[in-house]
Amino acid sequence: MEKLFRSSQRLLNQSSSSIFPHRSNPNFEHLKHISGSSYVYGDICNAYIKPYFECETRNLQAYHPLKDYVGMFRAKTCRIQYKHFGSTATTVQRDPSFSILSSDDIDYFVEILGEKNVFQDEDKLSTANMDWMRKYKGSSKLLLQPRCTEEVSQILKYCNSRRLAVVPQGGNTGLVGGSVPVFDEVIVNIGCMNNIISFDKVSGILVCEAGCILENLDSFLINQGFLMPLDLGAKGSCQIGGNVSTNAGGLRFVRYGSLHGNVLGIEAVLADGSVIDMLGTLRKDNTGYDLKHLFIGSEGSLGIVTKVSILTPLKLSSINLAFLACNDYLSCQKLLLEARRKLGEILSAFEFLDHESMGMVLTHLEGIRNPLPSSMYNFYVLIETTGSDESYDKEKLEAFLLRSMEGGLISDGVVAQDINQASSFWRIREGITEALMKAGAVYKYDLSLPVEKMYNLVEEMRLRLGLSAKVLGYGHLGDANLHLNVSTLQYDDSILAQIEPFVYEWTSKHRGSISAEHGLGLMKANEIYYTKSPETVRLMVSIKKLLDPNGILNPYKVLPHSPLP
Amino acid sequence: MEKLFRSSQRLLNQSSSSIFPHRSNPNFEHLKHISGSSYVYGDICNAYIKPYFECETRNLQAYHPLKDYVGMFRAKTCRIQYKHFGSTATTVQRDPSFSILSSDDIDYFVEILGEKNVFQDEDKLSTANMDWMRKYKGSSKLLLQPRCTEEVSQILKYCNSRRLAVVPQGGNTGLVGGSVPVFDEVIVNIGCMNNIISFDKVSGILVCEAGCILENLDSFLINQGFLMPLDLGAKGSCQIGGNVSTNAGGLRFVRYGSLHGNVLGIEAVLADGSVIDMLGTLRKDNTGYDLKHLFIGSEGSLGIVTKVSILTPLKLSSINLAFLACNDYLSCQKLLLEARRKLGEILSAFEFLDHESMGMVLTHLEGIRNPLPSSMYNFYVLIETTGSDESYDKEKLEAFLLRSMEGGLISDGVVAQDINQASSFWRIREGITEALMKAGAVYKYDLSLPVEKMYNLVEEMRLRLGLSAKVLGYGHLGDANLHLNVSTLQYDDSILAQIEPFVYEWTSKHRGSISAEHGLGLMKANEIYYTKSPETVRLMVSIKKLLDPNGILNPYKVLPHSPLP
Repeated sequence: MEKLFRSSQRLLNQSSSSIFPHRSNPNFEHLKHISGSSYVYGDICNAYIKPYFECETRNLQAYHPLKDYVGMFRAKTCRIQYKHFGSTATTVQRDPSFSILSSDDIDYFVEILGEKNVFQDEDKLSTANMDWMRKYKGSSKLLLQPRCTEEVSQILKYCNSRRLAVVPQGGNTGLVGGSVPVFDEVIVNIGCMNNIISFDKVSGILVCEAGCILENLDSFLINQGFLMPLDLGAKGSCQIGGNVSTNAGGLRFVRYGSLHGNVLGIEAVLADGSVIDMLGTLRKDNTGYDLKHLFIGSEGSLGIVTKVSILTPLKLSSINLAFLACNDYLSCQKLLLEARRKLGEILSAFEFLDHESMGMVLTHLEGIRNPLPSSMYNFYVLIETTGSDESYDKEKLEAFLLRSMEGGLISDGVVAQDINQASSFWRIREGITEALMKAGAVYKYDLSLPVEKMYNLVEEMRLRLGLSAKVLGYGHLGDANLHLNVSTLQYDDSILAQIEPFVYEWTSKHRGSISAEHGLGLMKANEIYYTKSPETVRLMVSIKKLLDPNGILNPYKVLPHSPLP
Repeated sequence: MEKLFRSSQRLLNQSSSSIFPHRSNPNFEHLKHISGSSYVYGDICNAYIKPYFECETRNLQAYHPLKDYVGMFRAKTCRIQYKHFGSTATTVQRDPSFSILSSDDIDYFVEILGEKNVFQDEDKLSTANMDWMRKYKGSSKLLLQPRCTEEVSQILKYCNSRRLAVVPQGGNTGLVGGSVPVFDEVIVNIGCMNNIISFDKVSGILVCEAGCILENLDSFLINQGFLMPLDLGAKGSCQIGGNVSTNAGGLRFVRYGSLHGNVLGIEAVLADGSVIDMLGTLRKDNTGYDLKHLFIGSEGSLGIVTKVSILTPLKLSSINLAFLACNDYLSCQKLLLEARRKLGEILSAFEFLDHESMGMVLTHLEGIRNPLPSSMYNFYVLIETTGSDESYDKEKLEAFLLRSMEGGLISDGVVAQDINQASSFWRIREGITEALMKAGAVYKYDLSLPVEKMYNLVEEMRLRLGLSAKVLGYGHLGDANLHLNVSTLQYDDSILAQIEPFVYEWTSKHRGSISAEHGLGLMKANEIYYTKSPETVRLMVSIKKLLDPNGILNPYKVLPHSPLP
């Protein structure tokens, strides 16, 4: 009881000022795979593509027999090769129904777009052919930069009639190889369509072209007292059209939810060039099927998003951050429930990490200090609040923390006193990936699972691997998004074989998702059955055929390359 | 300045306790049309259907030539007759491709469902054939009550092969004739599928069968400390499957948003009997097209929703209500902006009414007292807050009101001191419809429009009609949902001709919606072009053909009966 009291005092003593943490690059964890890779790029018919090693050998027992179609295509294929260890490789064949670009095609595009928006030079193309992690590389010979919807329409109408495959490209910041060509697809980059069309300060509804960069939109809105409902590490490059097309999640998800809830309307161009105007700016509209949702998250495979209407929340001024310790995972769950109940309307982040994650950071990163040094606890939780009134919000947070401490949910904790302290707390959470890289090899999984079952997977994996590896569990508990990471001194196929397909089967069995927010792209197109039922995939394929009968839009992505089971 | 100070004091003096208002039936305004109606019901081929008079003569100049197809069908038609005044009537013909029910069909259904779930008796059928407002009546000879998804699948598979038309029915509480047969469609009522499947107290995710009554779900959740993210006047009868199928809005929309944001997954049965399992329970899942959105708001015309997974918010304990006066509409808009900024996270309602609406209530309803009797103001606003901490929330509201008063946005105002006072404030807002009925004839429009332009329509209508009518504007300002009402002593075609099609054209011109939350059903299927573009409707039609090639699911609803423009 005495300890509880002292801890509570500490919480209260340290909470003296509001903070606004500058977080480090939240996508930093994705950078780790780049180190030490060697890439071999082939020609159109023999390009080596190196995806994440998150997506190694997948035994799709759950739904479809991978064996049946692996090796079906041997000639003129684009092999997907896996890094460091030689597990099963799948192949993607260039679709022979697509035409090869001709000089007449170029002439046509120059005619409709003007010479300066038709790019064939190697410098421009080499950048656009490769994703920002330098893991995927295509061999496109042409990049087009339309300046308006009508030009996008003319391009697609022509490409469809000529059966020229197209890859829509925004900021090219995707993580699953969705925004670069696989072979020689024509790149349609919408970066020149970057005008803000309107902003309604009363309703907070922004209408803009799809090529607007997320950070620019956010800066514009902040000047108006609003902010974008999504925030990504790539915000300086990614474009809103790409965000919508990939249903980007990001840091503000726990507070503002999915783009399916925030996007009010879009304008999209279908494969045949038809422009679908669904650019409503209304929160309520029940006049028929809400087809914009088809284009949110379909990764450019159903149409190119050209304009977006989005509901933006007000920018609130008061931000607080607490770093807490819990003895067990059940306490973390209960704390989440209590935080939702007591802080509900001001809760803006609820992140967790386990003791293995904390140990990893303390061991491998310099300048990191444990905010709760008296003991190593089993779990750590970061709770951030964002509200409209500094003093009330802080009192509310402090009262909540005191009650949780007295109730035994929290074993210890501190509240950041200033922006530096807040940044140091976030550094622990966001430094896990960097620490893992320094520790050696890492097998990394980004899963969405029911919160109550989420940590069972970490514990089962720990039992499964024994002393051969360290198993870390951390992530966005408030969004039910687990980062499961297995750390070893060096890569070992036998370790991988113990992890996969177990991790995917476990996720599938618990109705989880193998891609919480990154999409499927090229990388996970064949893994779809771990999360989606065959009937749902069949329906997806039918919709794709309906909207893009020639399959010219972003081929080889999202949908499985194999025959349907 | 002195007045401001006194007003502010009043605000502070009166705000002494938290309240939980019991509102009157929020759908009461829809009851007005029933009074004095006389209905003539014909047989299958000559059924008289009486829709709202919100949907009188529609000159669809905006997009499609109504003239071209009005009167196309004369024989064996179901006439849509308009009440009281003889404007243009449109006709719906029974689709001759649908089969007529045979005794063999009945035998089959008895075989798969058992005798007690196959209804042919007149009592049961007469209730199910008619909507709850007694405005629409079909002539179905058969009602089926499946008990599980597999039975729904067997029914649809059979109906599809036999080309028997089907109307899916939940609680039959819709307002646009969407849930009753138009002719002899087989009624598939899912009310027996009413089990709660699971509830996760940590994530707040509820999974249940589609026949669960909304109020039962809400009661279940309240015991768990949660609540449904939607609340309707019809909650005692309506079913969650129907709510999802119609994308129901309701009272909690301004706080929790649309079902597109809250529904995490569904299971649906397509016309051919295939079961599509999209019953995810994850907040994050980016594995391909999110096809559940096709079924949210498609009014049962693409499939029958059989199970639902929904994210439910925590029930918060502190509720406060203020009744305020503003001098002009610009102040109302600014107040909304400020309320979002200062109360943001606890704001749960922002309703407005103009002086004509207030005058109507004070004149025609008994026992209504003006909470601000010192003067008649141009606009009145109700602001409700719902939060987790009574004392903090109240202080926050009071500080906000004081600032708004000092800033000149509010001219006067009171905060409810107890539940009775809160109910009396809500009674004013919700009594407008009843008052309008007592005043004589009313022409009623439920529109979604950009907030900044919304009241322009009321003013233009007032100028247009001059002294011949009273024009009232009120509604859910926080949702940009306007109730435009024109009140006259008696119905008059010349008044109607001045209102329509002007009101629809104005709504269309400002990219508004002619159906903010009720859907299209039978009533507004032909009006879709006022809000949706022809290309979007074409795409809707394609999707309908893809998912239901024989068109057996809820025919004559949602999609226009006319050839596409």
